[in-house]
Amino acid sequence: MNPVSPLGNIRVVLSHTTHPGNIGAAARAMRTMDITALYLVNPRRFPDADASAMAAGADEILANAIVCADLDEALVETTLVVGLTARRRDLSHDMLTIREAAPRIVQEAAAAPVALLFGTEISGLSNAELDKCQLLATIPTDPVHSSLNLAASVQVSTYEVRQAAFKSITPEEQGLPAATFQDVEGFYAHLEQTLYDTGFLDPDEPKRLMQGFIDRKR
Amino acid sequence: MNPVSPLGNIRVVLSHTTHPGNIGAAARAMRTMDITALYLVNPRRFPDADASAMAAGADEILANAIVCADLDEALVETTLVVGLTARRRDLSHDMLTIREAAPRIVQEAAAAPVALLFGTEISGLSNAELDKCQLLATIPTDPVHSSLNLAASVQVSTYEVRQAAFKSITPEEQGLPAATFQDVEGFYAHLEQTLYDTGFLDPDEPKRLMQGFIDRKR
Repeated sequence: MNPVSPLGNIRVVLSHTTHPGNIGAAARAMRTMDITALYLVNPRRFPDADASAMAAGADEILANAIVCADLDEALVETTLVVGLTARRRDLSHDMLTIREAAPRIVQEAAAAPVALLFGTEISGLSNAELDKCQLLATIPTDPVHSSLNLAASVQVSTYEVRQAAFKSITPEEQGLPAATFQDVEGFYAHLEQTLYDTGFLDPDEPKRLMQGFIDRKR
Repeated sequence: MNPVSPLGNIRVVLSHTTHPGNIGAAARAMRTMDITALYLVNPRRFPDADASAMAAGADEILANAIVCADLDEALVETTLVVGLTARRRDLSHDMLTIREAAPRIVQEAAAAPVALLFGTEISGLSNAELDKCQLLATIPTDPVHSSLNLAASVQVSTYEVRQAAFKSITPEEQGLPAATFQDVEGFYAHLEQTLYDTGFLDPDEPKRLMQGFIDRKR
């Protein structure tokens, strides 16, 4: 993970998850989007073989998962708690789509820990849990069939956050200087020479392949 | 489903799926995004209790799923086949992110059937399957951990397609005339009268509530 990536400051908090397989599948989803901090509030069963079976390569996320007795413990140090919910719950919270919320999540995570909070499989977030959120976010769905699987919600949410993170980070912000004209030309000259040296490119008929590379630059 | 929605022209094609649970979870994912046509090319086990268990409310999609002996059968009538793949497979295909591809999928689906093609859980699309695709699309991930669960891929892909569909369809294109000034004013007058008639609103102190509605219009 890039050390300056805001993704390192984002934690997924799963509250009172019933099925350990969903915890494992959520970990796998997080892993694909490079969000690795998992907090579990009172999971019914964890650790569990079903969680491990569904994690498929995200075992490290499960091994490092922090099991908490209550939600407050899972939210320590966070400055923004975003509750994921399928429907508008009340009028006292801002309600955004996860795509709208993602840039704000990324911006906040550049400075301090942010929690993405997911409720139970059946009933979602309780009113007490909603009260801990500064922001509610929803994944737009067919209005009649709004019930995403828990891990699917984690997948879409972390996907949107990662998309926003990579949209907002310029090479300069990553600490990488942008390539200059000389850098680019030097790279292509080095590539061409290497292709000759290794015999991959025929010096007598090089034009089409190098032109192809040059076209790709544009 | 809205009859003019392009979503009705989009089919999910799962090729040689190993685990029936993934078929059920994919159906559930499709259902949340109002994409309901499922084609199964040589699934290892289908129908199957594991598929039904994971479908959770998407039983109708499973019941109507079309099981095909080969991929050609599943692609009949389509004018665009989009292969979902975790990595660049060759240089002969266009390769877009699913977000970039989604508007093109929606545009094509306004006129003719479009297939979203997903390969097996372990190895993805075969070369023979890639040859049937006009376009390859990828879900951007952490480069080291690019393996989304099959149903998670279906979830993100159908989510992006649905987002693009709703972004691109204006009320006019849905066959719905935009509300005129008189329509809107008439609606609020009718609402206000109904609130008086039912006793919900006090005629002597109506101002703040109606002003709240009026503020929300803007």
